[in-house]
Amino acid sequence: MNDGPASFYRRWALKIEYDGTGLVGWQRQNNGLSVQELLEEAASRLVGDAPVMSATAGRTDAGVHASAMVVQLDLPDDPRLDARQIRDGISFHLKPHRVAICAAVAAPENWHARFSAISRRYCYTILNRPTRPVLDLNHVWHVKRPLDASAMHEAGQSLLGRHDFSSFRAASCQASGPIRTLDRLDVARDGDHIRIDVEARSFLHHQVRNLAGSLQLVGSGQWPVAKLKEVLDACDRRLAGPTAPPEGLCLTHVGYPEDPFV
Amino acid sequence: MNDGPASFYRRWALKIEYDGTGLVGWQRQNNGLSVQELLEEAASRLVGDAPVMSATAGRTDAGVHASAMVVQLDLPDDPRLDARQIRDGISFHLKPHRVAICAAVAAPENWHARFSAISRRYCYTILNRPTRPVLDLNHVWHVKRPLDASAMHEAGQSLLGRHDFSSFRAASCQASGPIRTLDRLDVARDGDHIRIDVEARSFLHHQVRNLAGSLQLVGSGQWPVAKLKEVLDACDRRLAGPTAPPEGLCLTHVGYPEDPFV
Repeated sequence: MNDGPASFYRRWALKIEYDGTGLVGWQRQNNGLSVQELLEEAASRLVGDAPVMSATAGRTDAGVHASAMVVQLDLPDDPRLDARQIRDGISFHLKPHRVAICAAVAAPENWHARFSAISRRYCYTILNRPTRPVLDLNHVWHVKRPLDASAMHEAGQSLLGRHDFSSFRAASCQASGPIRTLDRLDVARDGDHIRIDVEARSFLHHQVRNLAGSLQLVGSGQWPVAKLKEVLDACDRRLAGPTAPPEGLCLTHVGYPEDPFV
Repeated sequence: MNDGPASFYRRWALKIEYDGTGLVGWQRQNNGLSVQELLEEAASRLVGDAPVMSATAGRTDAGVHASAMVVQLDLPDDPRLDARQIRDGISFHLKPHRVAICAAVAAPENWHARFSAISRRYCYTILNRPTRPVLDLNHVWHVKRPLDASAMHEAGQSLLGRHDFSSFRAASCQASGPIRTLDRLDVARDGDHIRIDVEARSFLHHQVRNLAGSLQLVGSGQWPVAKLKEVLDACDRRLAGPTAPPEGLCLTHVGYPEDPFV
């Protein structure tokens, strides 16, 4: 029998929401506050300042948001801590930062937030009107010139499936290769908002923002619809459009073979 | 012939968007910044610091937002100023405040932003989940206990039509009487969000927030569906629920016999 303090860790799956404005992104960096640092420090306070480790399903860049990021957190095993206390306790210690835990569950065996994930969904939002964003400040890309969402959607369909996405890959991308399978790219207008919903098993660094930047060229008529596929086929980043700004991007879903949160 | 400076005023209709967070509401007050003061000062800067006068279709309270408030602005007549310059020029001078002009048009003859209006639409948004708002911070009412949106919608239907709304009227209301005609009250859930969309020719002071506060009691099961109508019929403010907080409220549309903005 061991009556001493808990000597091993237990893995928790968390669904978290954050506003990336003013943060340096998910990953710890020494030039500003990261979601990872805020989360780990809040969790540490909940467990008596013991060290905790986290890993995420996707590392978002500075200024990028998430409504449903999935994170794993290895906490000292403590039978007094249940899922609700972890959700509410970490959320409490995260105040006043714009990061909070929407759900916490004991992770399934052998589950890993990143390696077990089989899909990621992002939404990129453009505010398409002459007037600057007000209610949506920091949550949209402001594009003044009128965009044709139907043309953007049509162009996007040519990118579906398995391709070499080098044309839409950041130079800083650390992935082992440029091949990805794009399962969904829907562009739809709702009033002055244009939403680009994308889904894939995984994405290259800046892939969604680079796609948004090129789709915007199609929407404004600077590119014909067919050019998007030509740029993809060229496998040359220099031929694609600009990288759209981070504030329009939001991670909205991470999929697993079995949803740990239901 | 008069070659002197413009000596009379011209009326403009503006559609404006604002985030009410931190503002004292529409109307000028000496205890903080108002939308009216910000707008009139920005417009005055556009016209060489000449005095300008404004009137609004609806005076919103502190913390309440608008995506499409309609305002009239009487500006010194200046043929060099067109609608686009007014929209963009006032929006420029409104920076860095979270108020901007979405549209400007020369007002029709005898048009008045308030007295010509024949309908107002508001959306009241509840974030219904255990976790505090993050991406929606300051734009929703956070209600933790689960709400039944269908029950709220059903109860709301009993308020449609012409009634004495004394039970949902603020003590501070300056309207001449408590009779109003509610043309629409739709309650719908979208994930963790519950949206209450209401429309009437006009509303009493706090009427929408008082309705939201009582609908929440129906949604949580504290009130049976039928109680909302009983409270209406009693014409007694003390029987109704609490006033829901301002941050969930947004004015979304003002209707006129002919839409000046099309």
